[in-house]
Amino acid sequence: MWFAHTLRVRYAETDQMGVVYHTNYLNWMEWARTELIRECGFPYRLVEERGLLLPVLEADLKFRQPARYDDAVTVFTRITAYTNVRLEFAYEVRRQSEQQQPGADCREPAGEMLVTGTTKHMWVNREWKPVRLDRALPELFALMPNIAKPSS
Amino acid sequence: MWFAHTLRVRYAETDQMGVVYHTNYLNWMEWARTELIRECGFPYRLVEERGLLLPVLEADLKFRQPARYDDAVTVFTRITAYTNVRLEFAYEVRRQSEQQQPGADCREPAGEMLVTGTTKHMWVNREWKPVRLDRALPELFALMPNIAKPSS
Amino acid sequence: MWFAHTLRVRYAETDQMGVVYHTNYLNWMEWARTELIRECGFPYRLVEERGLLLPVLEADLKFRQPARYDDAVTVFTRITAYTNVRLEFAYEVRRQSEQQQPGADCREPAGEMLVTGTTKHMWVNREWKPVRLDRALPELFALMPNIAKPSS
Amino acid sequence: MWFAHTLRVRYAETDQMGVVYHTNYLNWMEWARTELIRECGFPYRLVEERGLLLPVLEADLKFRQPARYDDAVTVFTRITAYTNVRLEFAYEVRRQSEQQQPGADCREPAGEMLVTGTTKHMWVNREWKPVRLDRALPELFALMPNIAKPSS
Repeated sequence: MWFAHTLRVRYAETDQMGVVYHTNYLNWMEWARTELIRECGFPYRLVEERGLLLPVLEADLKFRQPARYDDAVTVFTRITAYTNVRLEFAYEVRRQSEQQQPGADCREPAGEMLVTGTTKHMWVNREWKPVRLDRALPELFALMPNIAKPSS
Repeated sequence: MWFAHTLRVRYAETDQMGVVYHTNYLNWMEWARTELIRECGFPYRLVEERGLLLPVLEADLKFRQPARYDDAVTVFTRITAYTNVRLEFAYEVRRQSEQQQPGADCREPAGEMLVTGTTKHMWVNREWKPVRLDRALPELFALMPNIAKPSS
Repeated sequence: MWFAHTLRVRYAETDQMGVVYHTNYLNWMEWARTELIRECGFPYRLVEERGLLLPVLEADLKFRQPARYDDAVTVFTRITAYTNVRLEFAYEVRRQSEQQQPGADCREPAGEMLVTGTTKHMWVNREWKPVRLDRALPELFALMPNIAKPSS
Repeated sequence: MWFAHTLRVRYAETDQMGVVYHTNYLNWMEWARTELIRECGFPYRLVEERGLLLPVLEADLKFRQPARYDDAVTVFTRITAYTNVRLEFAYEVRRQSEQQQPGADCREPAGEMLVTGTTKHMWVNREWKPVRLDRALPELFALMPNIAKPSS
């Protein structure tokens, strides 16, 4: 199941090639990931207030087509694997036409494919030590099956 | 007395107008201000480790000419006024020729003028309450007359 | 008449003070200005496609309270003066409660005041030469009285 | 053979975790790549003036340890493969002690490992069509064997 987060490309995100500067896609993926977690019913802000962080361990990006200023772009995001210590996300960044923008909870990504990617994460405490989510924040861990299948 | 901090314009700092996106000048001024404080012999990192912050209260910018990708740009900075609670900086952002780049401690700004600006600051603690620098960090306050005249 | 553009503070916009890094407010003002122009019925993208640019000549910012991660923040924007060559905007950046977020066309700014500012602009062509908007893009100039009073 | 580009972490690059926001490493890699190309004797600015672009097709990042504000960080970069249409870079981002900072042309990366990564690129013209470097810019192609071995 994919979640969809739509944004409009800002002028600040372009570079002199006339397209979106490539590191912004990685920014957008973080933004979309955060919105996915919010829609689970547990905003990431609360996660940090409870003393947990979810840093990025790995990121892979494939750039197919560039986004341009003022484009409506949707970042489709889903959790592809999780355990009680780790979490993996996949992303599809797609250009939308002005007429058709997907709802937040979208089962089938649509639109012109621009960039794909994955990120891998680990739950840590404020000292950057790994923690088990099922012990540190069981009410969030209990929500995970609603949005993803656990890793076998 | 002006301090000079020279940087080279990064690709990421351009926008599709083909010039530096305007908010980057404000970034550069912060960077130059930090390097000025470092040269006083008291890196801003240590200031924060001692529990003080120096947030920006006001910023004024005048944009005359745009910087471009790969330009060598010098941010000339000086303290224009200070008391035991406040601090003001003035800036001149100038384009350098590849041959002539100023030293760090430069009495006369030179190069093509691009942007001028000022920022005003206040010393606060981690709860954002104003503090007197002469009481909270007297060893830094003692260095101030070396680099600026106090406000009358 | 104020226009309202609401955004949510991204993680990338915070710094280690735990608040929004100050240059982002200037970014947000650009974003809000662009959305105001879009609502006039003439997206800024089309302005550039017609060969015109609207660079910033001056920017003034007053920082009163910091925004924080995940805050819902509204940038209220209005045109305070214009002629056929120049344009001035005023801004109020305010924090919203989760319950009350203003509509796009909002006559009275509301919410906790965070930052105020103004920017001044000039219409130029691709060679950065000043142009008269009433001659270069009369259909946009004709829309201006709908959203602002001309400078006397 | 590795090239070394050392930078100091800016305040703007931190986030409220108290470390460098992760997308900045990708920015730094671009910056280091540009400096490597400059040291070859053919600044990337000239490449673009000749009508060529070198967009990123793929990027992979592994985050091991976070960089912090005011750290001296060296991005070690080398070309790992190239043909007349493609180019691949590898990166090691390492923290330096204040005493030991490597020279620009450094054969052995040193310092605490923070982030590793690779990027893949293709030469294109302004219409984003692939071009052969040996035909489009033979004087740059002739410099490549000085800094890397061609892909077999």
